[in-house]
Amino acid sequence: MNEQQNNPDQEDKASEKLATTAYKGVRDFYPADMAVQQYIFDTWSKTAESFGFRRYDTSILEPSALYKAKGAQNEEMVNEQTYTFTDRGDREVTLRPEMTPSVARLIAARARELAFPVRWYSIPNLFRYERPQRGRLREHWQLNCDIFGSDALAVDVEVILLAQQVLLDFGAKPEQFVIKLNHKVTYANTIKGIAEGLGKTVSEEQIAELSRLTDKFHKLSESDYRSALLAIFIQDTIMVEKINNFFRSTAMKNTTYYDWAFGGGLELEHIENSLKELNVKNVSVDPTLMRGFDYYTGTIFEIFEVDADGNSTGRSLIGGGRYDNLTQMFGGEPVSGVGFGMGDVTMRDFLETHDLLPDNIDKAGMTLAILPESAEQHLFAEQTALAFRKADHSTIVDLSTKNISKKINSATENNTRFVIVVGEREFNGNELTLKNLLSKEETIGTVDQLLETLSSEA
Amino acid sequence: MNEQQNNPDQEDKASEKLATTAYKGVRDFYPADMAVQQYIFDTWSKTAESFGFRRYDTSILEPSALYKAKGAQNEEMVNEQTYTFTDRGDREVTLRPEMTPSVARLIAARARELAFPVRWYSIPNLFRYERPQRGRLREHWQLNCDIFGSDALAVDVEVILLAQQVLLDFGAKPEQFVIKLNHKVTYANTIKGIAEGLGKTVSEEQIAELSRLTDKFHKLSESDYRSALLAIFIQDTIMVEKINNFFRSTAMKNTTYYDWAFGGGLELEHIENSLKELNVKNVSVDPTLMRGFDYYTGTIFEIFEVDADGNSTGRSLIGGGRYDNLTQMFGGEPVSGVGFGMGDVTMRDFLETHDLLPDNIDKAGMTLAILPESAEQHLFAEQTALAFRKADHSTIVDLSTKNISKKINSATENNTRFVIVVGEREFNGNELTLKNLLSKEETIGTVDQLLETLSSEA
Repeated sequence: MNEQQNNPDQEDKASEKLATTAYKGVRDFYPADMAVQQYIFDTWSKTAESFGFRRYDTSILEPSALYKAKGAQNEEMVNEQTYTFTDRGDREVTLRPEMTPSVARLIAARARELAFPVRWYSIPNLFRYERPQRGRLREHWQLNCDIFGSDALAVDVEVILLAQQVLLDFGAKPEQFVIKLNHKVTYANTIKGIAEGLGKTVSEEQIAELSRLTDKFHKLSESDYRSALLAIFIQDTIMVEKINNFFRSTAMKNTTYYDWAFGGGLELEHIENSLKELNVKNVSVDPTLMRGFDYYTGTIFEIFEVDADGNSTGRSLIGGGRYDNLTQMFGGEPVSGVGFGMGDVTMRDFLETHDLLPDNIDKAGMTLAILPESAEQHLFAEQTALAFRKADHSTIVDLSTKNISKKINSATENNTRFVIVVGEREFNGNELTLKNLLSKEETIGTVDQLLETLSSEA
Repeated sequence: MNEQQNNPDQEDKASEKLATTAYKGVRDFYPADMAVQQYIFDTWSKTAESFGFRRYDTSILEPSALYKAKGAQNEEMVNEQTYTFTDRGDREVTLRPEMTPSVARLIAARARELAFPVRWYSIPNLFRYERPQRGRLREHWQLNCDIFGSDALAVDVEVILLAQQVLLDFGAKPEQFVIKLNHKVTYANTIKGIAEGLGKTVSEEQIAELSRLTDKFHKLSESDYRSALLAIFIQDTIMVEKINNFFRSTAMKNTTYYDWAFGGGLELEHIENSLKELNVKNVSVDPTLMRGFDYYTGTIFEIFEVDADGNSTGRSLIGGGRYDNLTQMFGGEPVSGVGFGMGDVTMRDFLETHDLLPDNIDKAGMTLAILPESAEQHLFAEQTALAFRKADHSTIVDLSTKNISKKINSATENNTRFVIVVGEREFNGNELTLKNLLSKEETIGTVDQLLETLSSEA
């Protein structure tokens, strides 16, 4: 990913030669980087499929109407942050900035045929035109997992169980992350309950304003937070005091909601307790968890990285929740969903930070190179290679005209672990010499004998 | 892929509800289709990696300059067939219509560091704005395999060996396809040789015109072909007779080139003979093979489907060749390449025509569903599921509130093969009943015993 460090604008002006830099804000994946990317995708797939999720995909090209429709939540995004253009046939097209509208389209189109609940996942690349910075590129990939068509609370539990299992399957320990929960209805009811307790009422608009304010709770000083509360509750100092105390007494300590009874918080309590019974201990309710709050209609959850001292680093790894209005913009029967997304850039950062990437991530690391010394030995080398490939060993024949030491050097550079040099002696005999480039060990034998050696070293 | 049968233009006008159709000319992949797509990608990867190829990728977004540069072969394509637009920062961007310029960019950027020869593959999606029709969509995926940085003829052999191995690894038989070879230099020299034999000369331009004409050889009547030849060779009837006879005597019979000595056809002969010695018998030289002729500088090859009677169906499965000017537009040392591409749409058509898709292609076909009857049994079902997932069995817990027969129906619809119903008896005992939904067989046992049954059925 060195390309990104150059400045493409500058290079574009060097008109003689074409720049070798990628388009601004996207990544090139050379083989070593691609191996990491592929490892992340494969692990995502494996975990999702272990929970019975089936993969789907759509094109990155979507009609822009999909993001502009009533019920679509993304007006600002479409206007300012998407790649939207008119095609040669005068259609307005958008490069998908997120997967939810596309999957809603698929579900709505077959709502009558699908046997709900269905479990679907995808690994789309998504596009946003924004200022490139660490962790925010113009193109990134995202694991999306959703269960559609069930209102059962147990679905919320299973989706969160899957989300944290993804991290565990990468080798993360439960101490390295925390799962935070909130619930849109519980939250609203709690605020209403606090007001009722004081013989007052709050409007839906005040609740929405409070949500947006509370999203910044951890970034604001107490006095700034209090001033903002005074504006929302029209200088009602008693209400402000109560609300401020509520958030400070719960969120700061990562305890459960102040008073379950207030909010009818049974759903949230059920989810938290179910997860704990299923041995997921690093879960807690946090009334200040607000991300995507407008979007969801029930449970919301987010998984944050935790440092060695047990403190949240603020890095969000996974976010999700329940949304019941998924297909409303297409008409027909409503279909609810519970799901989450996690991005490749954050995932890779997390794996690198915690040293969780396997050493031999590059599959070609197990490659065997056969190095013939002359043109007439090429066919012999190819025939030998076919035998190794049939036995599932990735096998290169280095057909260049370089000398053997250069060929061995090139094999090493290309992550090859074993070589067989084919010279006059090997060409005329029955035995080959297999060299392990790491241990420098040599094994002499027939193809069958060497296959045995290789399978014991794998 | 039913969506494509609708007319999106019509539906766009139904302004009340948003259309559920995909953008025109692209595909939605519902799980059953995605499983086929994934099978094709996985097989492509596996075969390429067995030859020591390492995967790379780039973004679909590329600076348009990449396709407009001197040395880029795609002027017409950029002007008429690409998705090209201006981004919010006034950069001209193109959705990649092919992978070669992108990979040339990557190679050129690191030409000094890479240990050539390198073997690289990718499975990009590519975009062309054209009238959608069978096999020609606006977005398709393509396997690209190349060996960069070697002039050895043996590299041409290995790349062709890989290309046909891809088909064999899908279960195709050698009788189901033919490999056709040509060579740009051999071709030119042969035409020059024919002229020399008559005491005449031909210009490079005449050779290029003849190539374009001969590309249509199989579609033109002999008299039309002859008329066109007369125009190219300025009414030289002797030359025209000789050329016409040459192509008719070789191409129609699928024999090797008319006269190797004429064209210095040693390269072509070496490649054909090497492949035959490596047991690839379905290969022949065809002087009328012309596709991408301008693009390549040496060997070109193409693999065509063959019907049960041994005749070519005209369906081209794989095309490739050698190009020595790969990186010229970026300056620096030239790097040569030999490679090929094959598309997902053609591949799938071929696999379906020849009944080569495996029956249980949908991975979720091995899914186990655990169906609890009440809310209190959910956690028990989840705990049981964890045990099966740990043993690598894809396991659903159906958390909906439907009755058991509806749950079993939904499991069947979602390609599940086994179910365990958790009722009062199972919840309180140690034994579970595993039902095979296909054979209707039932096995009663503990989790460990059922795991054994499952692994013997896998």
